[in-house]
Formats: sequence, C-alpha cells, structure tokens
Amino acid sequence: MTSTLAELGEAELLKRLARFAPPGQLDDDTACLASDARPLLVNTDVLVDGLHFSDATTAAADVGWRAVAANLSDLAASGAVSIDGITVALVAPGTTPWSWVEEVYEGISAALQQHGGTLLGGDCSSGTTRLLSVTALGRLGPLRLLRSAARPGDVLISSGPHGLSRLGLALLQNDPQLQATSLAAALRDKAIRQHQRPQPRLDVLNRLLVCKPAELPWRAGGTDSSDGLLAAVQGLCNSSGTGARLIRSQLPKAEDWPGGDLWDRWCLGGGEDFELVLSLPPAWADALEQALPDCRRFGEITDQTGSIVWTDDLGPVQDRGFDHFAPG
Amino acid sequence: MTSTLAELGEAELLKRLARFAPPGQLDDDTACLASDARPLLVNTDVLVDGLHFSDATTAAADVGWRAVAANLSDLAASGAVSIDGITVALVAPGTTPWSWVEEVYEGISAALQQHGGTLLGGDCSSGTTRLLSVTALGRLGPLRLLRSAARPGDVLISSGPHGLSRLGLALLQNDPQLQATSLAAALRDKAIRQHQRPQPRLDVLNRLLVCKPAELPWRAGGTDSSDGLLAAVQGLCNSSGTGARLIRSQLPKAEDWPGGDLWDRWCLGGGEDFELVLSLPPAWADALEQALPDCRRFGEITDQTGSIVWTDDLGPVQDRGFDHFAPG
Repeated sequence: MTSTLAELGEAELLKRLARFAPPGQLDDDTACLASDARPLLVNTDVLVDGLHFSDATTAAADVGWRAVAANLSDLAASGAVSIDGITVALVAPGTTPWSWVEEVYEGISAALQQHGGTLLGGDCSSGTTRLLSVTALGRLGPLRLLRSAARPGDVLISSGPHGLSRLGLALLQNDPQLQATSLAAALRDKAIRQHQRPQPRLDVLNRLLVCKPAELPWRAGGTDSSDGLLAAVQGLCNSSGTGARLIRSQLPKAEDWPGGDLWDRWCLGGGEDFELVLSLPPAWADALEQALPDCRRFGEITDQTGSIVWTDDLGPVQDRGFDHFAPG
Repeated sequence: MTSTLAELGEAELLKRLARFAPPGQLDDDTACLASDARPLLVNTDVLVDGLHFSDATTAAADVGWRAVAANLSDLAASGAVSIDGITVALVAPGTTPWSWVEEVYEGISAALQQHGGTLLGGDCSSGTTRLLSVTALGRLGPLRLLRSAARPGDVLISSGPHGLSRLGLALLQNDPQLQATSLAAALRDKAIRQHQRPQPRLDVLNRLLVCKPAELPWRAGGTDSSDGLLAAVQGLCNSSGTGARLIRSQLPKAEDWPGGDLWDRWCLGGGEDFELVLSLPPAWADALEQALPDCRRFGEITDQTGSIVWTDDLGPVQDRGFDHFAPG
C-alpha cells in the first residue's frame, strides 16, 4: 500500500520529488538560470481538481502532463524557441496517496522530456483541494508573437482543429449529449488523446519562423487557444483594436466532425485544444499552409474594432464562454 | 457592497487586476523580460488559507505582502541583487468578495514598490480554498549564496532575531500559552509587525557583498529562515555535509525576549522570520557585524557531518519542527 503525504511528512516528500529534477537542483532556496542573450518569457498557469481535471477523466500522469502542456503552449504562443524549465507548486490534502503525486511528476517529466526544460524548483503545501500551479520559463526567438500585433488584412489561421479536447472530455464523462451521434472511432481516439495529452505547438512556431517570406517584417499576431478558438480571436481583436470575419464553412474542425449546433459550439468554445491561433500577412499564411498542411485558414482580421462576424450573413459570432468563477 | 468574484466573472476580474501591473503587461500569454548579462534566480512559494494565513490573524493586504516577502526572501538568500518581478496564481472560491482580492493585490504592490520588481503575470481560478502561488524572478549578483557552500570553521550568523513572527501569531491568536508571561510593549509591537509585514533582507545581502574582505573568495553559505532558525542550520549542514555547534547564550533573540523552554523553542523553530542565516569565514563575519550591528553570531560550522549540538554540553539541538502535511 502506498503512503499518504501525511505519513511521509514534508521532508520525505521533498526528497522523493528531488529525483524528478537534475541532481542538487532542489537543494537551494532558488533555481539559477545562466544568463542568455535572448529575452526570457515567463508564464504561470494553475490547474485545480474538479475544475481543470478530475479523477474520473484524468489520470494523475495526465494531470502533470497537462499542467506542463498548458504552460508551454503559452510560451509557444509568445515566440519561445527553447524551454528553460518550470517551477511547480503542489497543493494537496495530507490524505493524498504518494502514488498520485508520483504519477503527476512522472507526467510532468514526460512532458519536459518531450519538449525540453527541467524541473527547476517549487513548493509543496497541504490544502483541501489538489492543485498545481506551474510557472514556465523559456527564451524568445526572433519573433515576439503578440495579441496586439494583429492587423486588418491579416489572415486568421489555426495550427489545427478545435473542439477535440471538449469532445474527449464528453466521451470520458459519458456525456448524454453524445448519445444521438455516432462518431468515427478515429475521431473518438483522437479526441480522448487531445484531452489527456495535449501537445504544445512548439513545432508550429518553429515552422512559422522558418517559412517567413524574406520581404516581410517580424510581425505576427498570435495566441494559443487554451480558452477556446473564439476566445483566442477575441483576444487578438481586443488587444489590437481590430475586428474579425470568420468563414463558417472553414471553421477548423477535425476530420469526421459532426454537423449541428452543439458541434459548432464545441469547435468555437470548447477550449483546451492548445493550438496556435495566428494573425498573419497573407503571403506568410500561404507559406505556413505549405509548410504545415494541418493549418486551417478560417477568417481574416478587419478594421471593425470589436466586431467578430460571419462572412456569409455578417451575424455576430457567439458562444457561451466558460467562466471559472461562475456558480454551478 | 462589494461584488463577489462569481458576480464579477473572470474577464472583469482580470481587467481589475491589470491595474496592479504596468500598462499592457497582462495583455499577453506570457511576460517578456529583457535579456541581462546576470544569471536569473527563480523561486516559487505557495500560501494557503488556514495554514499560512487566516482572516483572524492576517488582513488581506498582509497576505499579499507576505506572499511577496516570502519569495523575495528566498531570492535574497540566494544572492539576488535586483528583482525583475513576480507572477501570481490566485485561487479563491466564487463567493470571495472582490475587496479581499483587491486588498491582497494592494499588499503585493506595496511589497514590490518597496523592494523592486513588478507584477509580471499570473493566473486566476476558482477553488474551495483561498491560496496564492507566487513565483519571483531576480538577478544574481557576484555571490551565489548556497546551502552547500558552508565550510567547517565558518561562523554562523543571523541577520536578526528569531521567534518574533511566531510570537506575533500567538499574540494575534490570544494564545493561552502567553497568559503567564508579561511582555514589553515594544516586543509585542515588533512581533506583530514581524508576523504581518516581514521584511525580505535584501538590505543585508547588499551589505554582505560590500563588506567582503578583499582577500576572501566569493564563497559563503546561506539560506533564509522561513522554516525556522534550526531548520536553516540543518539545511546548511545537510547540503554541505557539515555539522554545527550553537552557542546557547547567543541564540539570536529579540530584546526583552523572555527565558524558558517555550521561548527557546519559538526562537529555534518558530519560523517565518525571513532573516538570512549565513555561514561565513570569520573575517567576513567580523566585517558584517561591523556593518550591521543587528547581526547575531550564534555558532559555527564543524566537520561533524549531520551533528548539530550545543557548545556547552554538546547535547543535540532539537525542536519540534512544523510539518505542513501532518494531521491536526
């Protein structure tokens, strides 16, 4: 039988966690990163039990993976070309089994191994709800992707389909809304994988940097779609004082994605797909489409500040957003 | 009447929090720090309601102040000569009044204003327990203070008295253990201030750097005493493979600190005083005492690995440590 955190005590817990970091790394009050000529990008994301994950739908290792993926996705969406590492604040009740914590850190290690960076440090505390607060550090490449850098005339392009993570969650929860729909096996598998092991699109950023037409300056709008595709577009428009026109027939949907209102809503607002949503000059968008066939061009940026409409009927694009603080 | 977070919603909450950061700072997925020739120090600390603070003893502004102070203290104890800033992950139930959050961030701002650095970014989520996870970033000066850098023959020296924060907590809680003791008014005031508004000792680090005797190399052991004085000494000894002898009559106590077992324990293990505990070559310790009269020399480092004893009777120095995960 595995011990609980209360049985282990804090000192033994920290000793056990040290093996997930380079030797001696957790030995001091702080982590020290060598100086680097490139600017540093920093991001913090928190994952709370019952809200961002649950035992019913997320294995402990997937909790760790997703905590890292969510943070690295923000770094990718800002232009990070390398990852220094992360700090992790872990809060959990004393009754939490060590095996759960161990698997969380195994998931963290797996994500870092795939995408680069190490466990730099962190903190542990007891608390009534399990949660992870992760801060990721990475280095900026030649392009700082900013929400505020979108410009009228830009093409809106997504690095991949949207809604899969939301569908994966529904499948894992046996959501009754799915009963009416028969889904392709490949779509089901892909959706569950996307929910449990999302991939931060550092690969897309690298392609984007390489394919820039030489005559264009290093200017592109960008964000990730952790809060959903429409929220990403809204973020670009709000920060840059622009608007957008979306092409209904070209929404970035997965292969065999069903039609209907629910499915459109999940594509627009499902969230946690962690794709890059970019606002690019047309020539750069063309080049990226050549380099990455999975990219989806789904609209354009306009000078109609704050207006996000469909191209066909000019009606407003709406979804029912997710609010962390909303009751129930 | 102030709104709750659920009434505000996440978007409005983030908008209100943005005023605590430089203009546009919270507008993107990440914060970007300019490159710097000096290495970067990183630290994460988490403060949980009911464990690290409570409404009964800690005003909201003090929660914010202490979250920053705890992190900057770790940076000071590692050799940081400037502070870039912090990221803050805030978790709180939807029923939390906005006024509480606002005051927390006012406390955060006040601490940053005093010690340097800005609010770089962060995240918010609902959750059953209020907590703050803060990551602080700063730049290393000429001396990397390491726990592992203590050497036999070093003098153990503390930047100030210990036990005040624990006494302050007891006073705020009307702890019955205090009933038997009459305390000087100045000591009471100092203890409560130390508990509510601890000062990260960046000032001590600066003096330490300036007063190094020229013939000595940049080598010193150091940590902060956030987990208590004895825990700091244990940390130095464990990481450096050394032992220590402490001088009972020279424990770093505040003026008018009472005698007795309880008071010795609070001095040794009270925690959260956020002083620097340094292991210095004798000549450097002499110089620091000259520069900073509040410093207290209280022992020395030995080659007796893992042995922490009193100089007078060679008995082991013990306290009853605090374990975050212990039940009850």
